Amino acid sequence: MTKHNIILQPSGSRGQADEGTSVRTAARELGVEIESICAENGTCGKCLVLIEEGRFEKYNIDSKRENVSPVTPQEQKYFESRPNLLKSKGWEIGQVRLSCQCKIRGDVLINVPEESRGNKQIIRKSASARAIEVKPAIRKYLVNMTPPNLERPIADWERLAKGLETSMSLVRGGEEKLPRWHEMSIDYQCLRTLSKTVREAKWNVTVSVWNDKEVIQVQSGLHEDSYGAAVDIGSTTVALYLCNLRTGEILAAESEMNPQIVYGEDVMSRIQYTIEHKDGLEKLHKAIIATLNKLLKESVKTANKNIFAKDGKSADKSSFIKAEDILEMVLVGNSTMHHLLLNLPPKDLGLAPFVPAVHESVDVKARELGLQISPSANIHVLPTIASFVGADTSAMILAEEPHKQDENWLLIDVGTNAELVLGNRKKLSCTSTPTGPALEGAHVEYGMRAAPGAIERVHIDEETLEPKYKIVGEDEWNAGKAKGICGSAIIDAVAELFRAGIVDSRGKFKKDLKSNRVREGASGWEYVIAWEHETSIGRDIPMTQQDVRQIQLAKAALFTAARTLLKRNGLESPDKIILAGGFGSYIDKEKAMLIGLIPDCELDHVYAVGNSAGDGARIALLNIEKRNEIDAVTRKVERFELPTDPEFQNQFMQATSFPHMSEAFPHIAHLIPNRKADPMAKKFAVK
Amino acid sequence: MTKHNIILQPSGSRGQADEGTSVRTAARELGVEIESICAENGTCGKCLVLIEEGRFEKYNIDSKRENVSPVTPQEQKYFESRPNLLKSKGWEIGQVRLSCQCKIRGDVLINVPEESRGNKQIIRKSASARAIEVKPAIRKYLVNMTPPNLERPIADWERLAKGLETSMSLVRGGEEKLPRWHEMSIDYQCLRTLSKTVREAKWNVTVSVWNDKEVIQVQSGLHEDSYGAAVDIGSTTVALYLCNLRTGEILAAESEMNPQIVYGEDVMSRIQYTIEHKDGLEKLHKAIIATLNKLLKESVKTANKNIFAKDGKSADKSSFIKAEDILEMVLVGNSTMHHLLLNLPPKDLGLAPFVPAVHESVDVKARELGLQISPSANIHVLPTIASFVGADTSAMILAEEPHKQDENWLLIDVGTNAELVLGNRKKLSCTSTPTGPALEGAHVEYGMRAAPGAIERVHIDEETLEPKYKIVGEDEWNAGKAKGICGSAIIDAVAELFRAGIVDSRGKFKKDLKSNRVREGASGWEYVIAWEHETSIGRDIPMTQQDVRQIQLAKAALFTAARTLLKRNGLESPDKIILAGGFGSYIDKEKAMLIGLIPDCELDHVYAVGNSAGDGARIALLNIEKRNEIDAVTRKVERFELPTDPEFQNQFMQATSFPHMSEAFPHIAHLIPNRKADPMAKKFAVK
Repeated sequence: MTKHNIILQPSGSRGQADEGTSVRTAARELGVEIESICAENGTCGKCLVLIEEGRFEKYNIDSKRENVSPVTPQEQKYFESRPNLLKSKGWEIGQVRLSCQCKIRGDVLINVPEESRGNKQIIRKSASARAIEVKPAIRKYLVNMTPPNLERPIADWERLAKGLETSMSLVRGGEEKLPRWHEMSIDYQCLRTLSKTVREAKWNVTVSVWNDKEVIQVQSGLHEDSYGAAVDIGSTTVALYLCNLRTGEILAAESEMNPQIVYGEDVMSRIQYTIEHKDGLEKLHKAIIATLNKLLKESVKTANKNIFAKDGKSADKSSFIKAEDILEMVLVGNSTMHHLLLNLPPKDLGLAPFVPAVHESVDVKARELGLQISPSANIHVLPTIASFVGADTSAMILAEEPHKQDENWLLIDVGTNAELVLGNRKKLSCTSTPTGPALEGAHVEYGMRAAPGAIERVHIDEETLEPKYKIVGEDEWNAGKAKGICGSAIIDAVAELFRAGIVDSRGKFKKDLKSNRVREGASGWEYVIAWEHETSIGRDIPMTQQDVRQIQLAKAALFTAARTLLKRNGLESPDKIILAGGFGSYIDKEKAMLIGLIPDCELDHVYAVGNSAGDGARIALLNIEKRNEIDAVTRKVERFELPTDPEFQNQFMQATSFPHMSEAFPHIAHLIPNRKADPMAKKFAVK
Repeated sequence: MTKHNIILQPSGSRGQADEGTSVRTAARELGVEIESICAENGTCGKCLVLIEEGRFEKYNIDSKRENVSPVTPQEQKYFESRPNLLKSKGWEIGQVRLSCQCKIRGDVLINVPEESRGNKQIIRKSASARAIEVKPAIRKYLVNMTPPNLERPIADWERLAKGLETSMSLVRGGEEKLPRWHEMSIDYQCLRTLSKTVREAKWNVTVSVWNDKEVIQVQSGLHEDSYGAAVDIGSTTVALYLCNLRTGEILAAESEMNPQIVYGEDVMSRIQYTIEHKDGLEKLHKAIIATLNKLLKESVKTANKNIFAKDGKSADKSSFIKAEDILEMVLVGNSTMHHLLLNLPPKDLGLAPFVPAVHESVDVKARELGLQISPSANIHVLPTIASFVGADTSAMILAEEPHKQDENWLLIDVGTNAELVLGNRKKLSCTSTPTGPALEGAHVEYGMRAAPGAIERVHIDEETLEPKYKIVGEDEWNAGKAKGICGSAIIDAVAELFRAGIVDSRGKFKKDLKSNRVREGASGWEYVIAWEHETSIGRDIPMTQQDVRQIQLAKAALFTAARTLLKRNGLESPDKIILAGGFGSYIDKEKAMLIGLIPDCELDHVYAVGNSAGDGARIALLNIEKRNEIDAVTRKVERFELPTDPEFQNQFMQATSFPHMSEAFPHIAHLIPNRKADPMAKKFAVK
């Protein structure tokens, strides 16, 4: 295979790439991530790069445009429909390329503009300190085995099992029905080292038993603590909590970007990738397993650092945790993440009628998945509920417990897809709706994830129409250089555009306003939030008519889903709204209600609970009864599939308008002081 | 690594070997097996080879004695104590070498004399046609799944499980308590391909369920048959039966030598090998797994050949069996074979107090052991009973059913180690005793396995003292060229020497007999069975005083073990004696009783049942209730450990004599017509 020299700027990364490799892939192999959200279809334009021409003495290469493959019709089309972009930057087609389309044919120096760079995200998820009753699946017992002798040379396992029966009844006698020794089993990998361990231990061992039936670890001497990990695999972020299974304490919380993101930003692109590439599933599966192993390793390091910090230099080496001391993991994620984790082909999740391989919870040995913890450890994956209502929703239910309430609660997990659960102790209903990536900052002209440089808050003065904005990582308003707009600021901006009267209730820009920020841009009317000089990308950052439209579609989908659930259950509004997920925590709930993203409700009764899915995973890790509880609850949840609802299209069209009027949404009426009730109000009211 | 050219004669095998490799190892790598029964300790002398000197033009090598490592003190000692051997063959030390001791240093041509060649043995084990009630762990159900639609997009597994619940109750309704759909599970590896299979099958599938609880195979369309394998892993021979799990029919019976034999002939040498070599266990484990995979492959080939032969050329391709259609295996073997199969360190089986890792039956997935059948298949290993009473004895009990008798049965499995089980429906007792390898032809000067050239029957005329003998593979008596003596002929010879009055009741050769066959040889008195010219090894084949002594020790051990069991249970003799194993099938039961190998009993009540362990494995494969039965029975078997019995040494010494007298052994009194009752008779009688 012919190799070519590749230089990436501004990072200065260099190395070699095989002839025919795409620039994006070559960059990834050199450690430079380039954005993409269209699964390398050449349509999103997030991956654009510049092919620099010239002789670069420092690197001893001649870089030429002809050293990459010719511009494709796809690229031609993409750039020709954006003359403004080319003009404002002074770029020409052939110099600027979509890195997913253009292939290496010779030596090149490539410039990756800031907006294309896939930086490591600031991870916002963190575990809440929530009281969980600790009843772990793993229990430890000290067992003094009867040593064998020539009179009674009974096998090691049988003497261990009999000793264990005695220890269990001493520790838990009378508590419940305990198994007899011959009703217990020992994991095969654990059996393999049993004889050696019990002799080294001089017959005095600590036995870890899973679910009162399977011995999964035998340690020499006394060990009180055992460890487990709860994991929430989001499409974007993977969050892992290392816990002490005896105390319930969180010893470390680690997170990483989901590495599958390079194969496609949203779940549909990833499903597509597995369909189009023969080894696609294997790649996506191995990527998440590798990240889980990395997080496990890091969490152990962090936990040991904390132990050291607590005990000072005298810390006992024996109290340090090793990865093989992790005896159990509970994982949650949406249905696609669930399938990719378990190496199940997600193809049919992506094709009508959108069917998962399995709903029930799955138990599998760590070694089957290649997870580098105790080889005898069990992995528990929470049940999925419907095609697009996954194990993360099960975890959310477990954490928030709507099934134990008298009131009707509405749980919403907002992302590219939104999952909704409504109900109380008598009955739960659920549905899901694609909201598009707009709410997370994608498909919005300057949208981005909540990473450094992202505008995360926007306020518009309704007199001057001048904005204030806050950037991620900056303490002050209007400080720092903006790179784009993240989800929470997009909601803010749309709400503020509407509240300040810049757009009307149908979402249309008003054209007679006295502000140079409201202007007709390349792709229609827009409002400039940050001027070119306030940014790090050298261009004005506006909210465009198209962006507002994207948000209208997203919020209409979410609102219609919520209203359908309410109506089907004969309710006008929920008693409480619970917003889960990182997005829920960072949006301004007033503004979300103002644009009609969520149904009307007392603002005090709208809660943002953060990473509820992660909490649910942790609850299931620490309390085995909760696993049975959620298995039973999810088996009975009523599922509504929205596309089959005849009213859906009609409701959806109506819901694209901004409601906010006092009649329909009394709880946010005070936010819109200066305008009369909108004629749309009545139409929009919940009937 | 320096390589040298190696030629092996008479096979003509040639190739290269690394500097420092032992000649035996080098030969093995070139496909030439050389005998050894001392685990390469340089003591058994079975592996001797000749280093030929000279320039061999044909092979273009100069072969010299100096091209192998110098004679070791061990070899010097071995050959110096056998001057007769050197003299008779005209060999000198340095020319003749122990191939396990001598290392390659240069090019050599090596001559492997016939007696050292480890030919592939004639396998005598074959499955008996025994009626077994077929109640397999695997049952198949045709399931018509409800296809998913947008209204009810339920996951594949849940629709399959619900359909399965319906099919199960249709097929077996009222028969017993059947599981509900959510009480069933699906093996992880089976789940991985589920979505693809059910769609290809257009929702019409055959589901294989293990033990009424775990789905382990889903096939497109209707499939009636499923397959399983029962395996008896002997120290010497591995026998595998491929069975149709629906009909119980044996589709193929294959056997191979246990490949571990190259690491040591008996179990103790193999245990020793795992202790002395860091990768010893891994090697022995991988060797048996490789052989099992080979046998599985061969059995499938044989079964398909039979199907083809039965149906003629019209045989439907779809009825051909594939290895991945094998859905279950049941394995048995002695405790050491059991440990090596399961990759459990057997170290403590070889050291007092001789403790196995586990007695209980073991269930493990085929994929955990690398067995190349269905990855979801379960492997069931029958329970072991005591240190040297293994899963093969459990299988023997299951096959012969002493626990269902009113009479007292004595089961004996004779080998290097003998296992004995005595009792009836009220109680079973067991013990074991090392009998040494003499009964299998090892540690006997000209002993060998039942391979071509082995004398298998001996008769001595009590008037002329002339012998008749029969050789394995020959139809006529006194025909063919003898190479050595196998187990059954060794029993015959000793019994005949005694019956003809050549040795006395203490086993001593009489010195005043008029026969040139009775003579003082290099290592003491001996009786020549075959003269030099009647052999293929160019030497007389005698039974020596030492050989007779070896058999006396072996039979004393076996007899004492049997008598101890009888006495402990207050019995004088058993109602029936059942001899299991290949050895039991080929010995002459009268002669065995004549030398006191087995206790006195009506000759009609002595049965040779052949490979009873293999039958037991097959029973457990075909009938899942039998697994629970043998688990329960073995948990209650009383174990006697002979070395702890105070009477053992005393009894043992007495039992070395030949009993045979009418008082003690009335049932064989007629065989010894011409002599008076021996004064030892009373001493020897069972009290």
